[in-house]
Amino acid sequence: MSFRFQIEARDGAARAGRFFTPHGEVQTPVFMPVGTLATVKGVSQDTLEELGVQILLNNTYHLYLRPGVETVRQLGGVQKFMAWDRPILTDSGGFQVFSLSDLRKVTKDGVAFRSHLDGSSHFFSPESAIAAEIGLGADIIMAFDECTEHPAEYKRTQESMEMTLRWARRSKDYFEAHKWETPWFAERHGQTQALFGIVQGGMFPDLRRESARRTVEIDFPGYAIGGLSVGEPRPMTYEMVDATIRFLPEDKPRYLMGVGTPEEIVHYVAAGVDMMDCVLPTRAARHGLLFTSEGRLTIKNARFAADEGPIDAACQCKVCARYSRAYLRHLYASNELLAQTLNTIHNLAYYVDTMRRVRQAILSGDFPKFLSGVRLPHLSVP
Amino acid sequence: MSFRFQIEARDGAARAGRFFTPHGEVQTPVFMPVGTLATVKGVSQDTLEELGVQILLNNTYHLYLRPGVETVRQLGGVQKFMAWDRPILTDSGGFQVFSLSDLRKVTKDGVAFRSHLDGSSHFFSPESAIAAEIGLGADIIMAFDECTEHPAEYKRTQESMEMTLRWARRSKDYFEAHKWETPWFAERHGQTQALFGIVQGGMFPDLRRESARRTVEIDFPGYAIGGLSVGEPRPMTYEMVDATIRFLPEDKPRYLMGVGTPEEIVHYVAAGVDMMDCVLPTRAARHGLLFTSEGRLTIKNARFAADEGPIDAACQCKVCARYSRAYLRHLYASNELLAQTLNTIHNLAYYVDTMRRVRQAILSGDFPKFLSGVRLPHLSVP
Repeated sequence: MSFRFQIEARDGAARAGRFFTPHGEVQTPVFMPVGTLATVKGVSQDTLEELGVQILLNNTYHLYLRPGVETVRQLGGVQKFMAWDRPILTDSGGFQVFSLSDLRKVTKDGVAFRSHLDGSSHFFSPESAIAAEIGLGADIIMAFDECTEHPAEYKRTQESMEMTLRWARRSKDYFEAHKWETPWFAERHGQTQALFGIVQGGMFPDLRRESARRTVEIDFPGYAIGGLSVGEPRPMTYEMVDATIRFLPEDKPRYLMGVGTPEEIVHYVAAGVDMMDCVLPTRAARHGLLFTSEGRLTIKNARFAADEGPIDAACQCKVCARYSRAYLRHLYASNELLAQTLNTIHNLAYYVDTMRRVRQAILSGDFPKFLSGVRLPHLSVP
Repeated sequence: MSFRFQIEARDGAARAGRFFTPHGEVQTPVFMPVGTLATVKGVSQDTLEELGVQILLNNTYHLYLRPGVETVRQLGGVQKFMAWDRPILTDSGGFQVFSLSDLRKVTKDGVAFRSHLDGSSHFFSPESAIAAEIGLGADIIMAFDECTEHPAEYKRTQESMEMTLRWARRSKDYFEAHKWETPWFAERHGQTQALFGIVQGGMFPDLRRESARRTVEIDFPGYAIGGLSVGEPRPMTYEMVDATIRFLPEDKPRYLMGVGTPEEIVHYVAAGVDMMDCVLPTRAARHGLLFTSEGRLTIKNARFAADEGPIDAACQCKVCARYSRAYLRHLYASNELLAQTLNTIHNLAYYVDTMRRVRQAILSGDFPKFLSGVRLPHLSVP
């Protein structure tokens, strides 16, 4: 069997575990950096390996438009394409269709949309989205869903949730009928991808519960909590995570999509989340916002102009080992490419290290103490 | 003594040697990548080390404007500032003042100019330019010169050459009086920077000869050939190199500024050149133009869209070892940061490897054979 999840330790709702994919094992809880177009912007694959990144997220919508699914499939799938031999997860493209594309039209069959790049017309159905994800060949792929907009009325949210449930069924049916078409199927000894379901239900606890229960009935090897971090206040995010996660099976990984700050991800682990992804560490880095053990730091600030110290004296990353704040400030102020690369490496190191320490704390029984030291400042990202 | 040059082998006019600086030794002939703002655009210092880059060029004009000489001086000089513990060479800023700045006004005292960044007013004299170079603290610094424009009449070229000769004298006088002010002077056991002279003389062989002879009379530990690669046809460049180099001392390094293609640099070595710098490998890379053992390659070309091969099958660089042309084409076409980084790494590897093979050929007596295999295609750079 390709995908298997194993829990090694629990501490309250938090779990430390691991899952196994055709491209190797991933220790959880895990944060997945976003590599939209099969690249984590500005960071080379060998550096991601050095950082200890275990699994990347790629975006189906973007890769479908460029370079195209057929190109990636012919080249052996996203892992071979981007020369990354560790696990990859693709989203279904649903979120991007709703957030990036123009003139979208949703019917029960799927979504007609225009490319944000050139206005060309396209159509994603549950079947065609899963076909794209099979062609791309990531280890974990996501069911095609409708990410309900926020705010949304109860009735609209319920209808959207029903649509997502129907699409989940169709996603699974298509996947089961075609899962051996993954580019590396033969070479990986007949292993298959893992298709995860996505729970929706907007900001209504009862709809979250219903969506969770009925998604679980369809039966997936892992479950995502979608439709959060879409503009709602943070306490509501926590409430919805809580309202969802209690109805997800203990023995399957839970993936909270699109979160969060370094502090938030620790708290989501406490709620029982195993996997997360977010553009925050990489996008913030490109805007000069750096995460440190002492809080946020805006590297363009003039007070760093002659600062010989590293970004974070407690950080072991290769940027902090070598470069001063003064140099990084100069690179950023001069709009140099290297600023984006070095800032991103640091922020990813901070996230990877945070998850490593969280996992260690769960394994050693120190998680409550660890958690009590993590406060939740609020942050607006550029 | 801080700077020493030692020739190990000769083959015709070509030489293999090494020079010694306060930050270590450099094997010649050497190509110096350009790191204008104390960064080789898109490439981290550890990667430059891995590539075997021995010495970088930094631009005084740019660093004077950002982050400012005083900031770099306080931080210990450019090596500490950019966390690069190998040798660095700075130009004098003269070339940039003439090519980048607005509203410049040249008098016998120096050049008044406006910053290309914000229009602010500045003045460089031989004394202030050398003071800036001492404050930046590169291992090799260049005399302040006037790069004669091309084309220029004989009389104008002669006057410009005379100006450069007077400024060379003043550069040296100022340097001798202040050379212990280098930021790392004490910590490097009283070693000093090395100030090189620059030969001008435009496209007139007799002026080149006169400039060379009189620059040599001033006496520098190394000599640059300036004012070439400024728009003249390539055969004229070769003619001027030849007209200059025969009047430069055998026992001092010769630095040809601002050249060239991979083929050209081999031919300049054949003419007796020891050091070169050029933005070509790095700038061309950022425009998707790659150098290979089989010729140039424009990575955005659609024919690479599904090409699984490396940029250059004969190349040992880490980009060629890992990534396909299809992936690099995708990154470039998608305007991804990583395209610029990976392309630059490859082109620098190609230059470094070319110089390594040239040096080996000179040491082993095979240089004539090596040279006969290097043709000179002409190239227009974006």
